[in-house]
Amino acid sequence: MPLWKIYTPVDAFTAEDKKGIAEALTGLYGRVMPRFYVGVVFQEVSADNFYIGGEPTDRFVRIWVDHIARTFRSDEAKTGFFKRVNQLLAPWIADRGYDWELHVDETPFDLWTIQGHFPPPEGSEDEKRWMAENRASPRTHA
Amino acid sequence: MPLWKIYTPVDAFTAEDKKGIAEALTGLYGRVMPRFYVGVVFQEVSADNFYIGGEPTDRFVRIWVDHIARTFRSDEAKTGFFKRVNQLLAPWIADRGYDWELHVDETPFDLWTIQGHFPPPEGSEDEKRWMAENRASPRTHA
Amino acid sequence: MPLWKIYTPVDAFTAEDKKGIAEALTGLYGRVMPRFYVGVVFQEVSADNFYIGGEPTDRFVRIWVDHIARTFRSDEAKTGFFKRVNQLLAPWIADRGYDWELHVDETPFDLWTIQGHFPPPEGSEDEKRWMAENRASPRTHA
Repeated sequence: MPLWKIYTPVDAFTAEDKKGIAEALTGLYGRVMPRFYVGVVFQEVSADNFYIGGEPTDRFVRIWVDHIARTFRSDEAKTGFFKRVNQLLAPWIADRGYDWELHVDETPFDLWTIQGHFPPPEGSEDEKRWMAENRASPRTHA
Repeated sequence: MPLWKIYTPVDAFTAEDKKGIAEALTGLYGRVMPRFYVGVVFQEVSADNFYIGGEPTDRFVRIWVDHIARTFRSDEAKTGFFKRVNQLLAPWIADRGYDWELHVDETPFDLWTIQGHFPPPEGSEDEKRWMAENRASPRTHA
Repeated sequence: MPLWKIYTPVDAFTAEDKKGIAEALTGLYGRVMPRFYVGVVFQEVSADNFYIGGEPTDRFVRIWVDHIARTFRSDEAKTGFFKRVNQLLAPWIADRGYDWELHVDETPFDLWTIQGHFPPPEGSEDEKRWMAENRASPRTHA
């Protein structure tokens, strides 16, 4: 559900760094939804393809995220989420001196399939099974 | 209008496969809108840049789509669309054992131009001409 | 705030071209918001990964944009924006014979952070300081 797309400078992160970021993000979401919902794609962008304020950059991490499975229900939920993400990513980004920007869009729940299945509603029996088994399977409840 | 972005494992698809997918998708949409509206961009992502549930993957196809020209008008239209897409993509994805996830966003019709032209309304005379000529041209009707 | 993603044919643009495009776009937005809000990412796509209407292309520029900091308030604002963007990009795209398509989405203002800070409201004292200093800093006003 969340799809994280992370544009990074060339050689900013090792494979170990990237796995660490993906695991941390999966831990953040995986308490309340199936872990396999969390997709993270990294892409290195060279300075001549990456501009902030009209200037080429080799120290900027630009992240965009689509949230599908859940929508924020309150201002507190929004600020809490960004605060947690800030803390979570700090060791790889802020603490290493990279600049960074992050924005999230919320896209329609009913325009989304995994393995051809429409994911079950939040909190449903089917979702509990998907969480427990960590894989998609046919819905057994309406 | 639809922009399909398809993240694939490295070497998952040949050029012939990718053309086949793009043609099939264009056939799906091209019955009801100009064929040149259909854009498909493939991008290979190596396992150390591609994480599902916190684990690197070399067998996942992650697709996101922006729908611009049309919005779904009913639940039946939505489920019918995803069913057709499932069937259409199966030979390249599910039947080859790849896991996959697809989500669609709907973006504003009036924030979209092709060759600098705002596309004509659905079903209009201008749209019929764009379909027949398979190219954008100045609007001739209000 | 605006994140511009520009898919180009291979070798369509030099580093100088790309810096020129990024500077021009930054100039467009930078009159009314901090210049560092403007992010532009270029990505070359080979013809066997890039399909328009089901056909591989090596002469198409496909642009998608997320607007975050501002939303259009009138139809005049929308058409004016696209007309200015058309004129601005013409020397690199239309005048060189490339085909092109552009669509914009508007994503939630309150799901966006820079350097961990929620950007200040449009026209606020904090935004004026961010513009003047061309960098993010803690909010000093509510």
